[in-house]
Amino acid sequence: MRLADLSERSQVSIATIKYYLREGLLPPGRRINATQAEYDESHLRRLRLVRAMIQVGRIPVATVREVLAHVDDESLGRTIRLGAALWALPRAAELAQDDPDVTAARRQVDLMLEQLGWTDAAELGELSPIYRELVASVASLARLGYPLEAEDLVPYAEQMAETAALDLDRMERQPTPVEQVEIAVASAVLFEPVLLSLRRLAQEQEATRRFGL
Amino acid sequence: MRLADLSERSQVSIATIKYYLREGLLPPGRRINATQAEYDESHLRRLRLVRAMIQVGRIPVATVREVLAHVDDESLGRTIRLGAALWALPRAAELAQDDPDVTAARRQVDLMLEQLGWTDAAELGELSPIYRELVASVASLARLGYPLEAEDLVPYAEQMAETAALDLDRMERQPTPVEQVEIAVASAVLFEPVLLSLRRLAQEQEATRRFGL
Repeated sequence: MRLADLSERSQVSIATIKYYLREGLLPPGRRINATQAEYDESHLRRLRLVRAMIQVGRIPVATVREVLAHVDDESLGRTIRLGAALWALPRAAELAQDDPDVTAARRQVDLMLEQLGWTDAAELGELSPIYRELVASVASLARLGYPLEAEDLVPYAEQMAETAALDLDRMERQPTPVEQVEIAVASAVLFEPVLLSLRRLAQEQEATRRFGL
Repeated sequence: MRLADLSERSQVSIATIKYYLREGLLPPGRRINATQAEYDESHLRRLRLVRAMIQVGRIPVATVREVLAHVDDESLGRTIRLGAALWALPRAAELAQDDPDVTAARRQVDLMLEQLGWTDAAELGELSPIYRELVASVASLARLGYPLEAEDLVPYAEQMAETAALDLDRMERQPTPVEQVEIAVASAVLFEPVLLSLRRLAQEQEATRRFGL
């Protein structure tokens, strides 16, 4: 399809598409003459992903470029490729080393990983921005007077493992590895608001079931 | 305890506590003479909740006041009191009535509620800001090229129902109704980052299990 069709189908303006092309967020189309290029379904898919990251995830262009480099890196194994793409998404804080709330939170998270038998995550530990983010959240809760222990975290982690299995099932239904990694990134950015709304709806439902209206 | 002790234990400055008192976010202490008042554990708890809503939830003062009014309203039944407090938390958009993505999303959410048998939520429908938020999230995903159907939503909703049961178990362990509603509001504001980190950690773990490193 031509640039105008890509714009029409994606509902992204031609000016924005040209900007993404210049910034390297979208691979160039196949040149068909001096002024025109041809685009295909993979461009449309990539354009949607870029827009999701920038518009919904409010992720800076440089970070989007970094995430996409991992999505496209076929030299990596599947877990590493997925992990690298997710790790590049922002939201990870550095952990203060001398903060007692952080130290306590780290201990509870480590205990949780041990009780869950999640040895890979335990080995990665602070190397993983996801681990750091979790420790930082637990520490900020404790600081606000809501301490969580490993025993509080384990049942939630087990349930999140079930939703992660659904995520990966959905991912594995995608036909190619690049589409699999793309859908994983899109889910991380886009699916979280849906999940949180479902949780609140479920809380409401469960409260009604237990206490009546 | 005196104001200085309340500040010490909560790590909130005296100036900020005085501001919360003036704004009616914290009930006045028991006067012991012309210049001093006595505060108790309920003040400390309320102060933590207010700080969580303002600092972490970035909720405006007027909204915090509204949420707390519901938390304290003993004339309401337990589900209504909890619901009213959660409903007053912001994040709920009005739904566009003539947007085809919104219409399609509403249909899928309604189908999902029917399949789940969540009749109370279905009856409330658009009256509930939580329902509106869910429909808005599903519509924005569709607009970005990631449509979700009722069949995609149901398994996630079922899992969120399990985490909601854990939330309410935790809530029911609180000794008084006001503390129960307080913990529910604090969880809604504070627990979501923890849950999302657990989900990403679980995705990483499940990916490693399925694909190796």
